Amino acid sequence: MAKKPWGGRFPEKTDELAEEFTASISFDKRLSTYDIKGSMAYCEALAKAGVISQDEKTQILRGLKEIEGEIEEGTLPFSASTEDIHMHIEQRLIEKIGETGGKLHTGRSRNDQIALDLRLFVKEETAAIIDLVQGLQASLVGWAEKHVDAIMPGYTHLRKAQPILLSHQVMAYYEMFKRDRGRMIDALNRMDVLPLGSGALAGTPYPIDQTYLAERLGFAEISRNSIDAVSDRDFVAETLFCCSLLMMHLSRLCEELILWSAPEFGFLRLPQAFCTGSSIMPQKANPDVLELIRAKTGRVYGALIAVLTVLKALPLAYNRDLQEDKEPLFNAVDTVKASLKIMAVLFANIEIHGEKMRKAASEGYTNATDLADYLTNKGIPFREAHQITGKAVLHAEEKGKNLDALSLEELRSFSPLIGKDVFDYIRIENAVNRRNSIGGTARQRVAEQIKKAKKELS
Amino acid sequence: MAKKPWGGRFPEKTDELAEEFTASISFDKRLSTYDIKGSMAYCEALAKAGVISQDEKTQILRGLKEIEGEIEEGTLPFSASTEDIHMHIEQRLIEKIGETGGKLHTGRSRNDQIALDLRLFVKEETAAIIDLVQGLQASLVGWAEKHVDAIMPGYTHLRKAQPILLSHQVMAYYEMFKRDRGRMIDALNRMDVLPLGSGALAGTPYPIDQTYLAERLGFAEISRNSIDAVSDRDFVAETLFCCSLLMMHLSRLCEELILWSAPEFGFLRLPQAFCTGSSIMPQKANPDVLELIRAKTGRVYGALIAVLTVLKALPLAYNRDLQEDKEPLFNAVDTVKASLKIMAVLFANIEIHGEKMRKAASEGYTNATDLADYLTNKGIPFREAHQITGKAVLHAEEKGKNLDALSLEELRSFSPLIGKDVFDYIRIENAVNRRNSIGGTARQRVAEQIKKAKKELS
Amino acid sequence: MAKKPWGGRFPEKTDELAEEFTASISFDKRLSTYDIKGSMAYCEALAKAGVISQDEKTQILRGLKEIEGEIEEGTLPFSASTEDIHMHIEQRLIEKIGETGGKLHTGRSRNDQIALDLRLFVKEETAAIIDLVQGLQASLVGWAEKHVDAIMPGYTHLRKAQPILLSHQVMAYYEMFKRDRGRMIDALNRMDVLPLGSGALAGTPYPIDQTYLAERLGFAEISRNSIDAVSDRDFVAETLFCCSLLMMHLSRLCEELILWSAPEFGFLRLPQAFCTGSSIMPQKANPDVLELIRAKTGRVYGALIAVLTVLKALPLAYNRDLQEDKEPLFNAVDTVKASLKIMAVLFANIEIHGEKMRKAASEGYTNATDLADYLTNKGIPFREAHQITGKAVLHAEEKGKNLDALSLEELRSFSPLIGKDVFDYIRIENAVNRRNSIGGTARQRVAEQIKKAKKELS
Amino acid sequence: MAKKPWGGRFPEKTDELAEEFTASISFDKRLSTYDIKGSMAYCEALAKAGVISQDEKTQILRGLKEIEGEIEEGTLPFSASTEDIHMHIEQRLIEKIGETGGKLHTGRSRNDQIALDLRLFVKEETAAIIDLVQGLQASLVGWAEKHVDAIMPGYTHLRKAQPILLSHQVMAYYEMFKRDRGRMIDALNRMDVLPLGSGALAGTPYPIDQTYLAERLGFAEISRNSIDAVSDRDFVAETLFCCSLLMMHLSRLCEELILWSAPEFGFLRLPQAFCTGSSIMPQKANPDVLELIRAKTGRVYGALIAVLTVLKALPLAYNRDLQEDKEPLFNAVDTVKASLKIMAVLFANIEIHGEKMRKAASEGYTNATDLADYLTNKGIPFREAHQITGKAVLHAEEKGKNLDALSLEELRSFSPLIGKDVFDYIRIENAVNRRNSIGGTARQRVAEQIKKAKKELS
Repeated sequence: MAKKPWGGRFPEKTDELAEEFTASISFDKRLSTYDIKGSMAYCEALAKAGVISQDEKTQILRGLKEIEGEIEEGTLPFSASTEDIHMHIEQRLIEKIGETGGKLHTGRSRNDQIALDLRLFVKEETAAIIDLVQGLQASLVGWAEKHVDAIMPGYTHLRKAQPILLSHQVMAYYEMFKRDRGRMIDALNRMDVLPLGSGALAGTPYPIDQTYLAERLGFAEISRNSIDAVSDRDFVAETLFCCSLLMMHLSRLCEELILWSAPEFGFLRLPQAFCTGSSIMPQKANPDVLELIRAKTGRVYGALIAVLTVLKALPLAYNRDLQEDKEPLFNAVDTVKASLKIMAVLFANIEIHGEKMRKAASEGYTNATDLADYLTNKGIPFREAHQITGKAVLHAEEKGKNLDALSLEELRSFSPLIGKDVFDYIRIENAVNRRNSIGGTARQRVAEQIKKAKKELS
Repeated sequence: MAKKPWGGRFPEKTDELAEEFTASISFDKRLSTYDIKGSMAYCEALAKAGVISQDEKTQILRGLKEIEGEIEEGTLPFSASTEDIHMHIEQRLIEKIGETGGKLHTGRSRNDQIALDLRLFVKEETAAIIDLVQGLQASLVGWAEKHVDAIMPGYTHLRKAQPILLSHQVMAYYEMFKRDRGRMIDALNRMDVLPLGSGALAGTPYPIDQTYLAERLGFAEISRNSIDAVSDRDFVAETLFCCSLLMMHLSRLCEELILWSAPEFGFLRLPQAFCTGSSIMPQKANPDVLELIRAKTGRVYGALIAVLTVLKALPLAYNRDLQEDKEPLFNAVDTVKASLKIMAVLFANIEIHGEKMRKAASEGYTNATDLADYLTNKGIPFREAHQITGKAVLHAEEKGKNLDALSLEELRSFSPLIGKDVFDYIRIENAVNRRNSIGGTARQRVAEQIKKAKKELS
Repeated sequence: MAKKPWGGRFPEKTDELAEEFTASISFDKRLSTYDIKGSMAYCEALAKAGVISQDEKTQILRGLKEIEGEIEEGTLPFSASTEDIHMHIEQRLIEKIGETGGKLHTGRSRNDQIALDLRLFVKEETAAIIDLVQGLQASLVGWAEKHVDAIMPGYTHLRKAQPILLSHQVMAYYEMFKRDRGRMIDALNRMDVLPLGSGALAGTPYPIDQTYLAERLGFAEISRNSIDAVSDRDFVAETLFCCSLLMMHLSRLCEELILWSAPEFGFLRLPQAFCTGSSIMPQKANPDVLELIRAKTGRVYGALIAVLTVLKALPLAYNRDLQEDKEPLFNAVDTVKASLKIMAVLFANIEIHGEKMRKAASEGYTNATDLADYLTNKGIPFREAHQITGKAVLHAEEKGKNLDALSLEELRSFSPLIGKDVFDYIRIENAVNRRNSIGGTARQRVAEQIKKAKKELS
Repeated sequence: MAKKPWGGRFPEKTDELAEEFTASISFDKRLSTYDIKGSMAYCEALAKAGVISQDEKTQILRGLKEIEGEIEEGTLPFSASTEDIHMHIEQRLIEKIGETGGKLHTGRSRNDQIALDLRLFVKEETAAIIDLVQGLQASLVGWAEKHVDAIMPGYTHLRKAQPILLSHQVMAYYEMFKRDRGRMIDALNRMDVLPLGSGALAGTPYPIDQTYLAERLGFAEISRNSIDAVSDRDFVAETLFCCSLLMMHLSRLCEELILWSAPEFGFLRLPQAFCTGSSIMPQKANPDVLELIRAKTGRVYGALIAVLTVLKALPLAYNRDLQEDKEPLFNAVDTVKASLKIMAVLFANIEIHGEKMRKAASEGYTNATDLADYLTNKGIPFREAHQITGKAVLHAEEKGKNLDALSLEELRSFSPLIGKDVFDYIRIENAVNRRNSIGGTARQRVAEQIKKAKKELS
């Protein structure tokens, strides 16, 4: 058992069970590079403040540098008895450079130290996720451009609704991911606040230059309240929420790809290198990657609830409860990154069955709205046009025909205003291109959006 | 049973059980003013586009105006058979002005209509919540200013840590609510996108002027993808998350107020007009309002999970599942508003037991860190100073005394470097004011923050 | 404002905002019949204990009876100032019979009273849900029996796997709902404990006969710890969990019905009386009821999280936080009941497209496992047989044929062990009936299960 | 990269990213002993059915035995390319005994195999948790017995309510944990169903003796529906719910222990060996273990939500989504076990400050209800007695005295019915012992409950 930094006041030794139960070193070691980065900056600040001498600074920095090297090389041993990454590095430092190492913690607490480490971590990971989202968006846009003309049935309620461009549907996801990026950038700005200098909770009595620390460590602002600085985990919860929405969007995309690549729909062919087989059924090619991304939404939602539960009704300032923020965060971040990475590659390799898709778009009365619009143009109120078309659809269904396969006479039996120009009007391509409102599925509109998107991404 | 607007295609009547089960009118009637506002703008746009005549426009607008009046006066009857607020108003319109009423729906779908109504609602309610947060912040800042000098024990792990200013602790909540406001403003900006013109999912074939609609209805942008516009409920989930964090902050504040006003702490006296008694125990004065706010965090978290669950793996575009976004949203918004409103009043009426609080701050070795700092200033590495002080605390505990009640001799037995200036150094007021780092608890710092806060709020 | 029952100790009046914020009467009035039932039994017990006279008992019972009548007729007015249902009824009682009414609360607290009311409510509603689950099971079994021979493709990963009986798939839901019933019966037994007599938290000093109360009110046991009795809401959380799993099962069933009734699958025809149309697209018949049930899973999960959040880290005994248990509970119970009710009717009216389903079952190489089994029977290790069959499938796919449409020669090119008996072996019907393990899809097995199920339900 | 068992049908190799993303071996290796246990039983069943020869059986069993040894010794290497634990063990078996190893999978699928492994795991872990709960209960009961006479103030709304026995409060937790055990036993019975023999989803065509398998593997029942058997994860969700309620109970206990051991309450002294210090504040002894258990409730709630999210609207039968059940389950089970283990030891070592607690119980007008009861016994309706006592409390508060420190005259000024026997009546000990209803706090009642509890535990 390592000597506790706070042993002075304790007549008894920590129970081993308790030592193991409370130790966070098994997971917070992931923060070691941030911890060392923070300690190096803090060491400089201590020297600037005259709290330590230049010589002590040099020793400490050298020691930290060596430890950094040991961590990179994986030669620094970790054990539960050193509690956490902060104490672990401090003890190693004292081993290396002697009692001077003990000066590094002057005016600093693990409470502001972990707040710093965690903010550095989340900032870096959020930036990485933003990049990966952008990568996926690029994959979507590239693919949409390649298949810009493909027509598919648009769905509502999982029933064919109106013909749309496949590229238009894909660009809907582009918009979702764009919001995700914006949300993460907002979160990033909100968390960009230096907590170092807050001490245990009340601030530090040493003349540490916090402005220097903020610049050196890349923070835009300095915390204006030390109690808040050590109690606040909003940035963790907000990151987990951003990740939750992102996974939700991915789950919707996965669901659609699973459906569309099912033989019953048959619109797409998934890259076989991203499918797996069955141990018993020789014919199977399963969309496992998509199913797993979809399912992993669960663990990210769970991580969000975990942290929200921890924070509920927790009095200020630091409580050990806050240690429970890390594992859900690490897990969610890793999940999101892996999901984005594989989705970008998988998506780029999807092939389409254009003919089948177009045929599907032309069936199921997807142009019924167009017949109603046709009638509306002839002066019939839309509600009435809708009723008339409904009857025509019912008739066509009974005949087992598409609307455009009905004869003019049949159509006119529902309304004498129907002329033979109706057939051109309700052609699938016309139905698509007529919807050229802003955001509409008309080819021209979609092409514009793709162009804008490419510009945004570059 | 009302005639269905989509009855044409259906040979059978809707089952009554199904009619009742699917009807949303019992709760979406709350959106009626937004629905009418949207319909009026849309009517103008239809006229501008030449889809309806000026005369038809005049009739429709007059009809809508009348319905608006009926809703305000509560004379418009609602029934399950009209399904939802959109159909309800449309049918009433047709009753009033005849078949021309049926032209209002031309080129519009309930899918883009509800997306519009809901965005208008959330925008307005978010703005209202932002105002209420600001009101609570003003209450906190005013109170903090009034009690700026009061010293209390700062806590970590619910154990006395260091003396702080009560006002500093209160200002920590100011910071949390400031983030809440920022987060809601970000959300507001992100959702400020007009969905009208997206039709069922593919856009509209009518030359509706969406730029006019956006201006008229107060939207900064127009949706760039119609499929996304009718499928997207990110803004609902994001609002629920903002509400969740806000309630979490309130729950932390409630927890602290419950503790501090408990006789065992005895720092505060809650306004009795906000407490309630017991039906059986005559002596009780319970902090029910605070307990309820704390507990209501649960329902807001629940609302968030409800909507995230609905959206998971939902294919595009509109699905009836989306109807389930409303009740959790309404409930959360009402909860947050009521909680903020009452907290602002309650807080302003809290009284303090300043003497008791100060006494509590001076006990429990809250100045032990200062003794360690004192030793550090004498050149002892902080780690060693910490160990020495730990032993002094143990000794004082055994004697049942505070640190400053130990004799100089006793203190010197732990370190010969201790001089009689130590007593001044570890005085509570000095301990507070020495922590004058940015964000620290020193009186000057806190006063600065209060001043800044007042400026931010004005 | 009504006079508070606890007003004696309070010099100030309750703030109106606080009165409204804390009042639960708007929703706990739903418990009024349980409250009166409990009060009647308690009144008898008070008389038996000699705490009130026979005459007082008669007066109180008469008064309660009258109030019960007023509630049934809807003539009892409710207002926020009476706080909750308990105080409301007590005040009405005092209005009716004078100060004797004030004796009813002797030795009783609202804490044990609400614990009683809520248990009575949950017990009754759970029993009602169990009945509705049984009703749905009966609907499923009846339908399965009717379509016992229909063959459909069984799916894994939403890809055709092996041919199965449609009735077998439906009976899988029977099993889920059977577990739901069992889980609810267990919950019912666990909550079947009388809390009355626990007073505020410490028990009652009056010689109330709790055994009589338990019998009279239908409880199997009496709480063994009064503090637990007033703090415990496990039974609410457990009920919400049972409801969550039940909704989850319904959501899986809805998802399958939505898919199978989509034209792309085309296995089923939903009853049109349970579908709704589109306001814009005349051809649409949407499975709204199924979508809504699926989505309502979200609100029940949300209710569970709400209550779990409320209870987390709540100290004993009663806290006002517990008031927040009711609305999620009421909402979840109503949701589950309505969903079960409509599903039972809807399901019974689903029609099948048997031919289409059978054809779908015979395509997509669903009998590939059977070819592998055939080879295994010839002595080839299963792993090898699987590889061989995989190659045969690949070949058949290239030819665009089913496995049984390959010539014997073609098949033998993959393994010389294949004889012409293979064609019979891999016939769909044989593939189904060969799986006659316990729980297997063979017709005989499924028929047995249907028989057993009918017995269980009767 | 290992050869895939399902490679036959796939012309391309699996993408490496996909291989890594979908591999579960990193965590499902935890199921290896269950997998081997299941395979050994299955191997016997294959031999009994004549599917493999006695000689083949002997070889396979020997191979599995060796692999079991390798796992125990940690010499079996794991890699992502073998996907999961099932394939991993199968491939190792083939390496060891040649192609005969490939016969083990005959008639079995990974779908029923993982369902088996997971049930075996959950059954064993649930039983272990039940034992640990019992251990904690024993710890509570032993401690309650030791301190059976200690009086403390009972709390509602975190305000003193009535005097109670400390042992009574502790026994409230006994009751909660008793329900937890009951709930887990119910769950255990419900999941005690053999899924093996269900194949991929449709059952197995081989004459495997499932009754033998059930007996051999310790299952009470055999699944009656193969599709349900491979799709069902109810038992995972139910276990997570049981764990959630258990953690919730622990969190309530932790909260109380944190409060009561805070100097402001001062009722208890936590064992110092289970407290930790501060890196900066030398005086601190923090209840970290209790804080962490309280916080870990969050991760268990999160695990529950994760699995419920995965299962929502998932079509049957097996989908790869189900792989996401394992990590939350493992994490929750480990958390619960560690929390129970440490709590049992920690609790047994808590010391009490009996005098301080008794004094606290005698202050704060905890006997006001007794004064009201005294008046009620004199014939005053309880509601009126409550009002009178409320006024007396207000008076006493103003005087800064306890009720029993008021003079008889002072008391009589509130009601002339008060006699000098009142002082004995409202004595704390009498207040406690008078509440001798079933479940009440009277010493005799609590002693009875402790006795019963000891019997239940033995």
